[in-house]
Amino acid sequence: MKLYDSEVSGNAYKVRLMLSLLDLPHELVPIDLRAGENRNEEFLRLNPRGQIPVLLDDQRIIWDSQAILVYLARRYGGERWLPLEPAEIAAVMQWLAVAENELLFGLARARAVKRFGRPWDFEACQEYGRAGLRVLAAHLADRDWLACGRVTIADIACYPYVALAPEGEIALDDYPRVMAWVGRVQALPGYTGMQGIESVT
Amino acid sequence: MKLYDSEVSGNAYKVRLMLSLLDLPHELVPIDLRAGENRNEEFLRLNPRGQIPVLLDDQRIIWDSQAILVYLARRYGGERWLPLEPAEIAAVMQWLAVAENELLFGLARARAVKRFGRPWDFEACQEYGRAGLRVLAAHLADRDWLACGRVTIADIACYPYVALAPEGEIALDDYPRVMAWVGRVQALPGYTGMQGIESVT
Repeated sequence: MKLYDSEVSGNAYKVRLMLSLLDLPHELVPIDLRAGENRNEEFLRLNPRGQIPVLLDDQRIIWDSQAILVYLARRYGGERWLPLEPAEIAAVMQWLAVAENELLFGLARARAVKRFGRPWDFEACQEYGRAGLRVLAAHLADRDWLACGRVTIADIACYPYVALAPEGEIALDDYPRVMAWVGRVQALPGYTGMQGIESVT
Repeated sequence: MKLYDSEVSGNAYKVRLMLSLLDLPHELVPIDLRAGENRNEEFLRLNPRGQIPVLLDDQRIIWDSQAILVYLARRYGGERWLPLEPAEIAAVMQWLAVAENELLFGLARARAVKRFGRPWDFEACQEYGRAGLRVLAAHLADRDWLACGRVTIADIACYPYVALAPEGEIALDDYPRVMAWVGRVQALPGYTGMQGIESVT
């Protein structure tokens, strides 16, 4: 298995984390985003959207971090990570949607403004990200995990940009329930971190 | 089945279209977004994100349009609409991701600027939306459907904001392959339209 990767990307880290939790051997292929390696012809043949991560497995090319999570869960994780019962898979998908909306366009973009000088409206991104954190916090008030009463890819999809929120100047101290959940993810067997994520355990 | 709905929302229309294609009887509960009915306490108990659509089925509450598509496909559509083979479900998920990124934050936001006076950067939204249309067009160059060689929820997820793109002043004439695919969706048995979507057939 080969993962086209960038060390600083929370979306690529989603996949590295899942590979590590599933204990799947893989090769990392670093793509230099600053040098535009994600926009050259060779890379665009892998992913027409010009984004990392991309996974190569058995001649199959899978792009998009969350599609890769679904692929890995289905192929290597069974229903433990992605249940198939209609209401259960929908519960997981709801949090994948939060990860792609409030967390990506809020928390991740706020971080990208500060960390990579991206041109987005910092305060609007922070506010959108905080809306996501409030939804997470309320949901986690009486739950340990986001869906199905156990860890699933819902948690893995949401974790990276939540844990990286302080890089976008959003303190997680304001969300103790979210902090506790961050700690639970960090305590999973096979957990691996990334630069910029502080250990809360 | 009860769908909390708004006539003008492309995300709610995603679900109406799926319900119609599956020929599932349902009741529509209109939520007045301008009057803020999506932010009152009663509604926030259904969906803490304060968004339509929300589906009620057998005491289950499912929020998020794409989670609802997954739910309906799993519960009422079998593998026809959402295959479970790892590479196939991942292929569907890739286009759900495009629908939540370039199409929602590009095409849908450009439309919302023009149609509802929302405060986003119109040209940036248009450009992001066009990037999505280019990816769709390239993919559809030698395919009829987005994933798995047949119509799936990938098409239903992407269709609404593509078909509504002209309301955001993005002409689909520039993307003939996309136009042809729009026509194929419109020709599906059980298809239903919405105000703002022109018939291309």
